[in-house]
This record gives sequence, C-alpha cells and structure tokens, in this order.
Amino acid sequence: MSGNSFGHLFRFTTFGESHGPAIGCVIDGTPPNITLTEEDIQIWLDRRKPGQTRFTTQRKEADKVEILSGVFENKTTGTPISLLIRNTDARSKDYDDIKDLYRPGHADYTYHKKYGNRDYRGSGRASARETACRVAAGAIARKVLGPIFDIRGALIQIGPHKVSRDRWDWEQVSKNPFWCPDQETVVQWESYLDGLRKSGSSAGAMIEIVVRGVPIGLGNPVYDKLDADIAKGLMSINAVKGVEIGSGMETASFTGEENADEMRITNGKTTFTTNHAGGILGGISSGQEIITRFAVKPTSSITTPRKTITTAGKETEVSTKGRHDPCVGIRAVPVGEAMIACVLADHLLRHKAIL
Amino acid sequence: MSGNSFGHLFRFTTFGESHGPAIGCVIDGTPPNITLTEEDIQIWLDRRKPGQTRFTTQRKEADKVEILSGVFENKTTGTPISLLIRNTDARSKDYDDIKDLYRPGHADYTYHKKYGNRDYRGSGRASARETACRVAAGAIARKVLGPIFDIRGALIQIGPHKVSRDRWDWEQVSKNPFWCPDQETVVQWESYLDGLRKSGSSAGAMIEIVVRGVPIGLGNPVYDKLDADIAKGLMSINAVKGVEIGSGMETASFTGEENADEMRITNGKTTFTTNHAGGILGGISSGQEIITRFAVKPTSSITTPRKTITTAGKETEVSTKGRHDPCVGIRAVPVGEAMIACVLADHLLRHKAIL
Amino acid sequence: MSGNSFGHLFRFTTFGESHGPAIGCVIDGTPPNITLTEEDIQIWLDRRKPGQTRFTTQRKEADKVEILSGVFENKTTGTPISLLIRNTDARSKDYDDIKDLYRPGHADYTYHKKYGNRDYRGSGRASARETACRVAAGAIARKVLGPIFDIRGALIQIGPHKVSRDRWDWEQVSKNPFWCPDQETVVQWESYLDGLRKSGSSAGAMIEIVVRGVPIGLGNPVYDKLDADIAKGLMSINAVKGVEIGSGMETASFTGEENADEMRITNGKTTFTTNHAGGILGGISSGQEIITRFAVKPTSSITTPRKTITTAGKETEVSTKGRHDPCVGIRAVPVGEAMIACVLADHLLRHKAIL
Amino acid sequence: MSGNSFGHLFRFTTFGESHGPAIGCVIDGTPPNITLTEEDIQIWLDRRKPGQTRFTTQRKEADKVEILSGVFENKTTGTPISLLIRNTDARSKDYDDIKDLYRPGHADYTYHKKYGNRDYRGSGRASARETACRVAAGAIARKVLGPIFDIRGALIQIGPHKVSRDRWDWEQVSKNPFWCPDQETVVQWESYLDGLRKSGSSAGAMIEIVVRGVPIGLGNPVYDKLDADIAKGLMSINAVKGVEIGSGMETASFTGEENADEMRITNGKTTFTTNHAGGILGGISSGQEIITRFAVKPTSSITTPRKTITTAGKETEVSTKGRHDPCVGIRAVPVGEAMIACVLADHLLRHKAIL
Repeated sequence: MSGNSFGHLFRFTTFGESHGPAIGCVIDGTPPNITLTEEDIQIWLDRRKPGQTRFTTQRKEADKVEILSGVFENKTTGTPISLLIRNTDARSKDYDDIKDLYRPGHADYTYHKKYGNRDYRGSGRASARETACRVAAGAIARKVLGPIFDIRGALIQIGPHKVSRDRWDWEQVSKNPFWCPDQETVVQWESYLDGLRKSGSSAGAMIEIVVRGVPIGLGNPVYDKLDADIAKGLMSINAVKGVEIGSGMETASFTGEENADEMRITNGKTTFTTNHAGGILGGISSGQEIITRFAVKPTSSITTPRKTITTAGKETEVSTKGRHDPCVGIRAVPVGEAMIACVLADHLLRHKAIL
Repeated sequence: MSGNSFGHLFRFTTFGESHGPAIGCVIDGTPPNITLTEEDIQIWLDRRKPGQTRFTTQRKEADKVEILSGVFENKTTGTPISLLIRNTDARSKDYDDIKDLYRPGHADYTYHKKYGNRDYRGSGRASARETACRVAAGAIARKVLGPIFDIRGALIQIGPHKVSRDRWDWEQVSKNPFWCPDQETVVQWESYLDGLRKSGSSAGAMIEIVVRGVPIGLGNPVYDKLDADIAKGLMSINAVKGVEIGSGMETASFTGEENADEMRITNGKTTFTTNHAGGILGGISSGQEIITRFAVKPTSSITTPRKTITTAGKETEVSTKGRHDPCVGIRAVPVGEAMIACVLADHLLRHKAIL
Repeated sequence: MSGNSFGHLFRFTTFGESHGPAIGCVIDGTPPNITLTEEDIQIWLDRRKPGQTRFTTQRKEADKVEILSGVFENKTTGTPISLLIRNTDARSKDYDDIKDLYRPGHADYTYHKKYGNRDYRGSGRASARETACRVAAGAIARKVLGPIFDIRGALIQIGPHKVSRDRWDWEQVSKNPFWCPDQETVVQWESYLDGLRKSGSSAGAMIEIVVRGVPIGLGNPVYDKLDADIAKGLMSINAVKGVEIGSGMETASFTGEENADEMRITNGKTTFTTNHAGGILGGISSGQEIITRFAVKPTSSITTPRKTITTAGKETEVSTKGRHDPCVGIRAVPVGEAMIACVLADHLLRHKAIL
Repeated sequence: MSGNSFGHLFRFTTFGESHGPAIGCVIDGTPPNITLTEEDIQIWLDRRKPGQTRFTTQRKEADKVEILSGVFENKTTGTPISLLIRNTDARSKDYDDIKDLYRPGHADYTYHKKYGNRDYRGSGRASARETACRVAAGAIARKVLGPIFDIRGALIQIGPHKVSRDRWDWEQVSKNPFWCPDQETVVQWESYLDGLRKSGSSAGAMIEIVVRGVPIGLGNPVYDKLDADIAKGLMSINAVKGVEIGSGMETASFTGEENADEMRITNGKTTFTTNHAGGILGGISSGQEIITRFAVKPTSSITTPRKTITTAGKETEVSTKGRHDPCVGIRAVPVGEAMIACVLADHLLRHKAIL
C-alpha cells in the first residue's frame, strides 16, 4: 500500500537503492511445487544486465541473484521467495557534482520535495537499477504461467527510427543488442546511437510486447481489467510516458466498422479476422494475442548543459556525467516482458479462485 | 480485490448492471466534516447523463442520485458514503436479437467465457452505464481535493478530425455538446457525426485532461506512481485503448535535450520552461500542470452487419440495434475527469499520512 | 482500506447508519453460477431481526433485503452483489436527551473525538444495526461454501449463568429465543433477564461457534492465519472483548502433554483423540471441527444513572432510554456465525488460487 | 495478500525459514527523516534472542540485523526498509527423525496437506524463528510512534502459576529472564520450569501488554477496529490461542453497571473511573491505557512420547528432540509488544490521512 508492491495474489515487493548495499524483492503467492533454481532467474537478469554492450550504461554489475527463502529441494514451497542482489560497482563519487542541484526531467526534484531528503547517489530508489528486481519477479511469474504462455518483447523505435513491420522477424530479436526484430534497422540504430553517445545525448524508444497462449478469461472487470493492470504495470517502469493496447491511440481515428474484430469458426475454434483489441475485450483476455506498446522517454542524464536550479533555489546549469544508458529504452524490453508476466500470473491465480 | 473497487485511502466500490434495478457506489475514506449534498453530485452526473443531444445514446435516464449514508446535517461524517441511482429507462427487449450471439469488439464473448453466464440485456456490468458511478465518486473526490485543484477535460479528436491547439479556448468547452475547446471544430464534428449516425456507424475519439493546482509530492514510487495509477484509472474506462502522460508516445522520438524540462526561478518560485513530463517526475507530482490523454475506440454497437458467431459456435452476422452512442468518447470526458479526481484524492490522503 | 470492508477474494463492504435512510452492503468476489434469491438471505436476517422477543430491542424492523445487482435469473453472475435494507422504525427523538453528552462504555466519545462530529441518533454507524449487513453477507458466504460446511452457533453464558456441557443438545438451539443448547439453562436465563429488564440493566454473554466439514488446508500463514482472521472478524463485532480458538485462554495453564491432540488412523482416515487446537494448526485448518468462542460485554445503554460528562466538558449523569437489547450477546449468535462464514469463504477462494 | 504481510500504511512483509540461509523483512510506509540505525533494531532483537537463559531454546543465534535499504545517513528516506538476519546455528540433522511423521499439535500436518510439501527442518516457515522479523519491524514501528507511546509487556502466568496483581512492579520486568513483574513469582516459575525441562515437557503462558500515551482517535470502524487489528496481530503469533481486550472474557459475566467506565473531568481533562474497555471504545482508542492479554499454548515439541501418524498414514509414536523452548510464551513477550507497536503505527498513519 505504500507503493513498493505490485499484484495481489502473485505479489512482489521490491527494495533497495542504486548505491546502497543491495537490491532485492520478496515474491509472495507463488503456488507450491514449482521447480525453481537461481539459474532460472539468472538467465533473465542476464538479459537486462548493464555493461554488456556500448549501448547501455558502462556500470558493471554481476547482478548475481541469491534465493534466500521459499524454495526447498529446488521446489517452491508456497512461502515467500526472497531474492537478493548485492550492488558491487556503485561509484557514488560520480554524483558529488549534482548533490546540490536538480537534473531537469529527473526525479531529483520531486523526491526531495516529497520526502524532505534525497539519496543523490545514483538517484537512490528512482534509479533504473530497481528494474532488475522486476525482471527477477518476472522470471518467477513465467514459472507460474508455464510454457503455454509465450511472452516476447521487441524494440520497435529509437528516436525517429522505426522498425519495418514487413521485415519483422522474431528470430532476430535475440541476435542483436537492441532486441530489434528487423536486421536492417539494427545498422541504422547503431549508427544513430554512436552519434548520440559521442555528443553525450540520449534517445527515446518504443517497445512492443506480444503474448501468445493466454487462455480466455483473465482479468477482473471493471477496475482491475487486464488492460488496466497492464497499463499500470508498464507505466510504473522508469521513464515510460505512454501505453497502448492493440491498435491503441490510433483507434481514436477509427470507425466502428474498421475497429470491429470480426469472429469466425475455424477448424471448430473461435477465431478473429483482425486484432485491433489487442487480445482484451471488456478487460478480459479473449484468447487472441495480447499486444501492447509503451514509450520510453530519453534518459535525462545527458552531458549537454541544461538550465536548472540548485537545492537552495539558485539558477544554474547542469551537465550530468556518471555512467548512463544513451537509450534506456533498450533495457526496458526485458523489464516490460517481466511486468506483463507478473500481471498475467496475478490474474491467472485470481481467475482460478472463482472457477 | 475482485475488481470492482478503485483506490486505497479514498476508495470506491461500484455495483449494478445496465438493465438491473439500480446502479450505485460506496465511497469509503472520505475525511469528515466536508460539506456535501446530493446536488453537489448531481451537477456532475448531469454532465455525463445520456439522452441530452442527438450525439449520445437516446436512452433517457434521470440519473437521480440518492445519498444513503455517510452524511449527517449536510456534512460528511467519515463513514462510508453510499450512492444509489435507480435505472428507469431500460428496454431489455431491444437485446433479444443478440441474446444468442456475440457482438464483435464487445465484451459479450469474454464475459460469457469467463463467468459461464451472460447478462445480455444492455451488456450488464460491461455497459458504459457503469461510468455514472465513477462520475458520482469523482464528485466527492473533487470535494476532498478542494477548489485549489482545477481538473478540466476536453475532447480533442473525433475520428480523423482533431482540434486546433492554436484555437484552443477552455471557455468553449461547456458551450457545445462535445466538450470541444475549438469552436470551428464543433461544426466539423456535427457534420461528421450526423453522417455516421445516419449510416449506423460510430467513431473513436481522444480526450485530454489537464489539472492545475496539484501540490508537489503526490504519488508513491515505485509501483503506485501517480502516472501509473492514472494510467490504470483511465485504461479501466470502457473502450479506452491508450493512455499518455505529457508528451506521451511522442517522447519515443525525442532526444534528451528535447525532452528536458529546464528549471528556472521566477518571482522566487520554481518554474519549468516546458512540460513534456506532464507534471509528473519519478511518479511524483512536480507542481506543474498534470496533462494526460486517452484514446476511446468506436463503440462496437453498429448497425452495419459484421461477421460473428453464435453462442452455439455457428457463423452468422450481427447488426446491433438498441440505443447507442455514435461516439462514446464524448461522454468519456466527464468520466475521465472523475477518474483523475479519484486518483488525486487517494494520493492526497496517502501523502498526508507520511507528513 | 478505510475500515468498512472485510475479506480479500470474498470481500464485502457495508454502509449505513442506524437512523439514516438505509443500511446495506456490496459483496464482491462471489463466484458465478451459484443459485441465489432474496429469500436465501432473508431467512438469515430474520434470525437476527430485532423485536422478536422481549429479550431483544423492541425496535421493529422488517429488515427486508433487496438484491440490487449481481444476480441474473436467480444465479450469481460473478459481478458485485449489492444488498439494500431500508430503515423503517427509527425513532430519533429518543436520542435528544443524550445529544450533548457521552454514554459511558459507548462509542459516543471516541467517534466524536476522532471525526469531530457525531451522529447521536441511535449511535449512527456504531449501532449494532450494522450487523444486519454482516448477516446478509454471511448468507452469501454460506452459499459459496456449500452444504458441506456446517456452521453452528450457540449462546453458552449470560451474566454468571453458563450452560451445562453435559446437557448440550444442538437440537435445542433453534427452539428458544437465546440459541441456548441446554433446556434447563433457558429457564434460568429467562428469569435472570426479566429481572435485568425491570431494573433497566444489561448483561454480558459468551457465544460458541462450531464448524464441521472444513477441508484441510484453509488459511494463509503467517499473518493471515485462519485463526488470526477469525479473531479479527469476531473482535470487529460490536461489544466483543475476547476471542478464543479451541481450548483458548485455558491453554496457558496446560502442559505440552495435556495440549497435544494425538493423531490416529481410523478407518483409513486421520483422526485426533482431542481437539484443543480448535481445528487449526499453524494457522491452517486441520480437518477437525473449528471451535471458537467470543465474549460480548453488556450493552452500555442502561437506565441506571451513570456518571459521565457533556460534550462541553461538564460533569453530569446519564440514564439511557431508547430501545435496547438487555443482552446484546443474544443477537450476536447469528452475527458470529456470519463472520465465520465470511472468513471461511474468503480462505476457500484464496486456497483455490494456489491449487 | 498471500499471508506474509501485515498492516496497510505501515506494512511489513517477512520471509525466511528456520533452517534456510536467512530470515528478514521489508517494511514499507515508514515516514521519512526518522533517525534509524541497526543498533535501534538490535536492542529489541536481543531481548527476544534465543539461548540467553536455560529457560529458552539452546539454539545460539546472534540474530545480527543488517539494514539493506531505506536509510541514508542514518535517517529513513521514506523508501522500503529491508532487514536481513542470517541463520547461523541451524542443526537440520536434529530433524531427521521426524522427517516422515507429524508432531501432534504442530503445523507439520497442515503445511504438508495444504502445500503438498514440507520443510521438516526446524518447521521451516512455521518456526517461532519467524518472530524475530516481527520484533525487527516492531522496533521501527516504535520509532514511528515516538517516545510518547509507552508499550510494555509482562508475562503474567506460566502453567498454573499466576503473578499477583498486588505485587506488580514494572521495574522487575527487565530484571528476570521471564519478563515477570512480580519477584516472588519468579522463584516459583524457575522451580516449575526446571521440573518441566528435566521431564522434557513444556508449559503454556499468558502475556499482558499495556500501552500508555495513545492519543484518542486511532482505529477504523467497523472492520478495522483497533481491537480487531490487535486481535489479528496477536492471534497470528505462533501458538497463540486467545486474545482479550480490557476485562476480556470476564465481561461475559458483567452487568451493564459493572462494565460502565464512568467519566469525570479531572484538572480539566477527561478521565475514567475504571478501564474495563481496555482503552478502546467502538474500535477507536479512548486515550486510556490500552490493555490486552493473550494465551500461548505449550510448545508441541516435547520428549514425552505422543501417539501420532507417519506421512504414509501409519500409526506410530513421536518424541521430539532438537532444541526447543520449554515455555515458548516467555519469548512471546517482546513479540507481542512488537505486534502492538506495528498495529498502532499503522493506525497512527491511517488516522493522519483524514485529519
């Protein structure tokens, strides 16, 4: 209730600051007798891990996860699963310069005003480092969902450069540092980001997540609609400014005829001719693919000087050093997948309760 | 927890089906000693009420609200406020034709599959009629917020036709049936919607809500960020497919320089040169205007025949009669305002708890 | 979260003041397709209804329940069930004398100080009238549990007079106005209460609830233990001052040998030689009978003058007229049963979610 | 929602098994800028720590707490506080003998049946070791409450031996290993427990907690009454079988005259002539001392052979070795205090929200 937990029956609580001793999370509500090892979580953390290419922050964190509870003889017991990740490469000195001022577009100002204090070292709790915990929780959510649910994310836009839907190939996603489904766009992005890195700038991005294998019936109208919980989950990720389901913002310009996903019977099963709804009708999954997109703004930590003010209320300029992602949207791909997994796991359990 | 409640400290629960005896809501958590009469709620319900112009559903509902509890001598007591609105103009016979089939793009199919039953009369709980309760709760939320919070909504797009930002005039909003801030666009929309009505079609729409007077510090990182809760609140409204904060989806194409809302001191107060963030940084209100937009898809109840299936799994076509909004987005304006008011009231109380 | 809701997956919210227009509740989370009519609820309300004998308050309320939502063609739909009970026999004038003073042992003082206001007419929300809503919710909880769960309550003590365990006969419970399982004690209580009524006094009481048919496995350690939730549910009933599970307070004087409920196999099934645990081990139901007791203090509304103070802080005396229960514990029997039913229904659904 | 969290605005979640690598908790909702060091928590953990006298378990745990987050420069930041306690003296081999059978009166059987698995080593999550986390959370709750709240617990009964109210001296409580307020009783208990230890038996106990300095107005009627939440909090502690507020179970035998706590004005302030209510009226604190008692059953781990069954359903006998508390109620004193502190801190924040 104080903001650091997500979900109801499958519920996780995260803790930790970017430059504190550790980050971690507690997952409560995992059903018992699911096979789970640290390796099952580590593979997903490794996807999000910083310092793997020149396109993400150069902070080197092993992000090694330790399971502290809730697993006995490699099976979940039904008790809370606690995960710990020690911080090992925090360089708090990098932040001495910004100790007494606010970075424009950053949470510095609002945290300071809300709480009357501020952990200026690496933004404390507002750091994207927190998202490692989301990925860890998401790894367990995937275990709860089982292999029938197929959750895949892709980066579809960096700055002005969008992928081509015609060249979309899911196989490509794991073969480049951008989770890009379009080989030609990869080259374009590399060049664009190299330019940004040199100039100390940053870029926004767009991510798309697609889920196959979702059974009909997940979602609790009218306030805990599946899409409402997805929107909350994605909008809670650092730097996200917009969320769409299915045809999203574009539906504003549709007519009823264009928007209707017509229904057919194919080989005895219900099918739809289109999927503008993005797999959710009335807040409940329809059995179609769930399709969602979210926009990530450029990181506000740039070296270009920006006008700002000091904590004492004087006007000044700031140029942020430290190690930052030129495009924080890249690492948002596994984070977005994880949040979707957590929303679905929660709603799967909630649905089972009324069966 | 079962989906029909919203908020935590300022929390409301709604009930009722479109063609049942009544709809209503219970609001728990309203602080005591706030002046409140039925009239305070009725004025907001009247804004959303159907049947007022030819551009909304022709169902005639008085939407007369009765306060059943929580108010003594015109003041809130701190106990739950229960509101009741009787249904008076339900014509369930209109729905006999669709009793055994699913309307494409509608919740018919998913409700039936999730719950194993279906109130086909006016869509039961999935009806937009439920939103009257949101507006009623929102009226009380505004009382909790007080007059400093200034929440205003406008319709900014119907189908392909967008308002002009240059001609934006808040004064116009209450002077036309569309909550349109741009007089010239009103004429265009009238003609466009008359055409759609005649052809039995419908149109999507876009709404923008702007809030002035929000103090710094509302929002609970990292999962109950103010924008995350706004996204959930808006996405939970019937037919909404996308939500944006500030520059929203467009930030994907920004550079860090473009996105930074630079800070200045003006007359001793903190000001910002731009507001791409939409008034929220790190999930906490910054004191700037909160700006949000959401897209409403066209209503799926159209007379143009669409391919669909019966509940028995046979292919057929459907043409929906009954009385429907040609553009359900119009009435979504007061609903969106109400949801924002409720999110803010909840976070105002949550913030007070830690002061 | 603001105090007027109970449960998680089976969750109800009550509203209404003793002398307002109505009381009622909204039950969210009822699984779909359960047969439910107003009569199913009315039979339980009639058990608690005031004015039926000279041993309860003489206020005459029909307590006629109306189902406003959540039921279609006599089956639950899975949407919230709203229940309304109009107040018809409130005599607010009776309370004019106590408008400006506090009754000792009553909530008058604390409500006034907490909320800065006070509905002095029949105690407003603090009235035992609120418990009608608990009974209504309990009626639906029983439907969720199904006939396998057998929940029975009995009054086992009024003032100094306890029932005899040797003469205990469940058949007697419905045959006297006290829910007393011991015919001989009935006579004693009648005479005792007639004396109290004449002198304008009141008496405390003890209730025991026994549940058969509870499956093994309900309860969520470590904070939502089944007994912890029972304790909360019972302690939340007006005037309750103590709650016990199994051998309860007496276990403080036991040795480990005395306390151990030894286990055997009887006809292939697990059995226990005793039931000091009251059917709950480690917060989880064991399959034994759940046994719980709770103490209800004497109603504080008595005609004997008591020293008190006015709202203006002057010393005075008060003698409460109005219509009150000489032993409010009598009507607490169906209320206690209802709360147990609600706790069990909630935990049944919660358990199903992890299966 | 899955059982391992407690509270709403001041909310903690615990994790960890008795013989796993660690136990710990995450506290969310602590207001910012409260001075907090590990030492502030350690002093309370040391009170509960095992192995300090011959009257508690001989397991030697340092119970050294590490703060992982939420504190910056010795002040709370308003973000979640995570606490970690490594297990260092688990001797899992001791439990090999009971691996395949259930101890009567223990959670072995119900955990196994509910979850389909069982961490037999030291009872896993059902171990009283979990209560160290409650004490840690309670230490922070005390900081939130501030020094005005004075929470004190005492052991008032072991087996058949009760303290004398006439000889009650709070000063004595910290001077003996039992938290006993009566010096003469200490001698009696030592001799009684030495006898039990030799025979391998165990004893029940009763604890009383008294809180001074509670402001008027804490508690949220009607379901989150202050006493209802206290009852839940105390009943959730391992082995607790009964909870009383004020005169508790005894009120069943009272008349209205006996029960009324009459009110007076003394030196301009409201006072009460008695405190049968235990400081809570209508679920709201009255400003009087809050008085509560709870009964702890004897630990079920005794060496006397008891009849039981194996996990395979065969009848057998069990004699529990390992290291156990002969009277687990002794260490329940600081645990009970901690739970009361947490309930009060939660309600203090909840009350502030509506002021």
